Amino acid sequence: MIFPAAEFQGRVARLQARMADAGIDALLLTTPPDVFYVTGFLTRFWESPARPWFVIVPAKGAPVAVIPSIGAGLMGKTWLSDIRTWDAPDLVDDGVSLLASTLGDLVPDTGAVGLHMGLETHLRMPLADYERLRAALAPRHFADATGLVQRVREVKSEAEIDRIRQTCAIAGRAFDRVPEIAGAGAPLERVFRDFQRLLLEEGAEWVSYLAGGAGPGGYGDVISPASDRPLARGDVLMLDTGAVREGYFCDFDRNWAVGGADDASRRAYDRLYAATEAGLAAARPGMTAGGLYRAMAAVTGDVSGRIGHGLGLSLTEWPSLIPSDRTELRAGMVLTLEPWVEIAPGRMMVHEENVVIREGAAELLSPRAAAELPVI
Amino acid sequence: MIFPAAEFQGRVARLQARMADAGIDALLLTTPPDVFYVTGFLTRFWESPARPWFVIVPAKGAPVAVIPSIGAGLMGKTWLSDIRTWDAPDLVDDGVSLLASTLGDLVPDTGAVGLHMGLETHLRMPLADYERLRAALAPRHFADATGLVQRVREVKSEAEIDRIRQTCAIAGRAFDRVPEIAGAGAPLERVFRDFQRLLLEEGAEWVSYLAGGAGPGGYGDVISPASDRPLARGDVLMLDTGAVREGYFCDFDRNWAVGGADDASRRAYDRLYAATEAGLAAARPGMTAGGLYRAMAAVTGDVSGRIGHGLGLSLTEWPSLIPSDRTELRAGMVLTLEPWVEIAPGRMMVHEENVVIREGAAELLSPRAAAELPVI
Repeated sequence: MIFPAAEFQGRVARLQARMADAGIDALLLTTPPDVFYVTGFLTRFWESPARPWFVIVPAKGAPVAVIPSIGAGLMGKTWLSDIRTWDAPDLVDDGVSLLASTLGDLVPDTGAVGLHMGLETHLRMPLADYERLRAALAPRHFADATGLVQRVREVKSEAEIDRIRQTCAIAGRAFDRVPEIAGAGAPLERVFRDFQRLLLEEGAEWVSYLAGGAGPGGYGDVISPASDRPLARGDVLMLDTGAVREGYFCDFDRNWAVGGADDASRRAYDRLYAATEAGLAAARPGMTAGGLYRAMAAVTGDVSGRIGHGLGLSLTEWPSLIPSDRTELRAGMVLTLEPWVEIAPGRMMVHEENVVIREGAAELLSPRAAAELPVI
Repeated sequence: MIFPAAEFQGRVARLQARMADAGIDALLLTTPPDVFYVTGFLTRFWESPARPWFVIVPAKGAPVAVIPSIGAGLMGKTWLSDIRTWDAPDLVDDGVSLLASTLGDLVPDTGAVGLHMGLETHLRMPLADYERLRAALAPRHFADATGLVQRVREVKSEAEIDRIRQTCAIAGRAFDRVPEIAGAGAPLERVFRDFQRLLLEEGAEWVSYLAGGAGPGGYGDVISPASDRPLARGDVLMLDTGAVREGYFCDFDRNWAVGGADDASRRAYDRLYAATEAGLAAARPGMTAGGLYRAMAAVTGDVSGRIGHGLGLSLTEWPSLIPSDRTELRAGMVLTLEPWVEIAPGRMMVHEENVVIREGAAELLSPRAAAELPVI
């Protein structure tokens, strides 16, 4: 296991304290980050959408797993002892009656089952099975537990921060080696593949996310797959990665000028660097996510979309650095600072760093980008 | 775009024919494979759970995209022309009213919106937003469209089969190079990372899935992360990959004996090889998924769990090769054959190939495994 049982016991105790306040008798978790968070169960097998997996956090005591039998061995290595399995896939009853009876025992007839219903969440089980579960558990009701879980998960323990720092260091070493793989003439599609290779060589266990872009004096967007167009002198290249080690993500990017940079690119880079400096300087417990947006937007000007977000067991977590997000920043929250600027219509540049909110100044988790746009 | 518009138009026409039969006025799609299937929209940005994405297949005409504005540029490169966006994340109304008004225009008051509700599916949007959408669209109702979508998507076009064959060839070349990276003394954790590197070198755009195992005379399970235990003489090593290129997965594995194999390992391998031979020989249009299970289980004996499944835009698709699955096999369906045997308690071996059902004999898409357990 990646953490000792005490780490998970603390997490569960913090969830249970908030569950008691909210009148929730059991929490039903269905997604990889939530299940890992309370159990330590870590597997790439989630990639298969075939099977649902359920973990219940009761009002008191350790979580109960209700999972396909193929996962019994691995779940048995976690700190959980109550592991109930069915032979999935079962075309008639794919764990629903087992889950209903387990929840029925843990939740009084008039009680509430907490579940994610809010933004940035989804229910990872078939909708018809959820309706069956609701019917089977009535008159118990389901209640939104999104905020409750977020308030606990968003404050990372030092053990978690260490893991995120470790993944950031891996990506930092890979970014340092980009001159080995990128330069005028290298097709962007090959740069994407080679950069993932560098991440693996530097210690990433897998590369869950890779994005980027390249174009003369800036790139068009940051979500398109790579084309096979060769990099050309005057291009700005950006690579943005969500590599993973021991379950924890990094999420930051780097920019390079190919051959040389024009003034507009250099100025855009300087502005983004100044914006992340402003974000780093401003980030403090007690301010809001919206306040941190404003600290960076004071440098870049207002932009659409979010310019940063939470980070940890997923590539992106709440809160969102947007003007309207009033989530209070607290010590231990890990965030990305991700300002962007439009250089010209269809040409943008984005810069991203990872930080942890501390009682004093925020701490950088990603190795700081170069102060000036590097040339390769 | 990976395919010409005609490929997507054909897919949508086939969906619409079944929608008409089922009395479904519009189909609401929310997951990466479904959205790619009808639009060609391909991005790793789905890794972020922050934003929902919606594509509607109306009763007639091209799909309508209702998506976060960050995706407008990339969606604009697909064959779709009706692309409606909102600035996500919006903490008050994250696309729900835009989606409701769009569906409201496309579906009559007494009509039905089709949605995935069945096994192997989930709804990739917040549950509370789904409830809001239901309320906004009443008296329209939501109906399960799982079977409808599955019957269309499960029969691959030749263009899709070409893509899966291409990904299988990439993995085949990487498997051929495993002796470069694995052998007595190599920690399994490093072998996992190095094998992903080989996949990228051989042409994979990303490695969505990697699993494996190693142990004396067999491995304990196939879903655990790699430990740092060095491979030892007498181990059986297995690597199983879901690499991706142009959106299409492979999903097959290979086994090796480290240093040399004992008789039990060799016999288990022979039995699995014979079981996939039996599956290949038996697989024909008109039989059921359960029938194909029985053809392989005649060699291995009955086992729990499924011993194969569909493959394409996800690592695993329906149907399941289990006794109870009566899905009819049809020409163009791409399946994995994945029999396993228990060698001794806690020691198993699994073998997997990828095939496409043809009018005559099935066609192998993965390069056939060696007939005898290879030694490295």
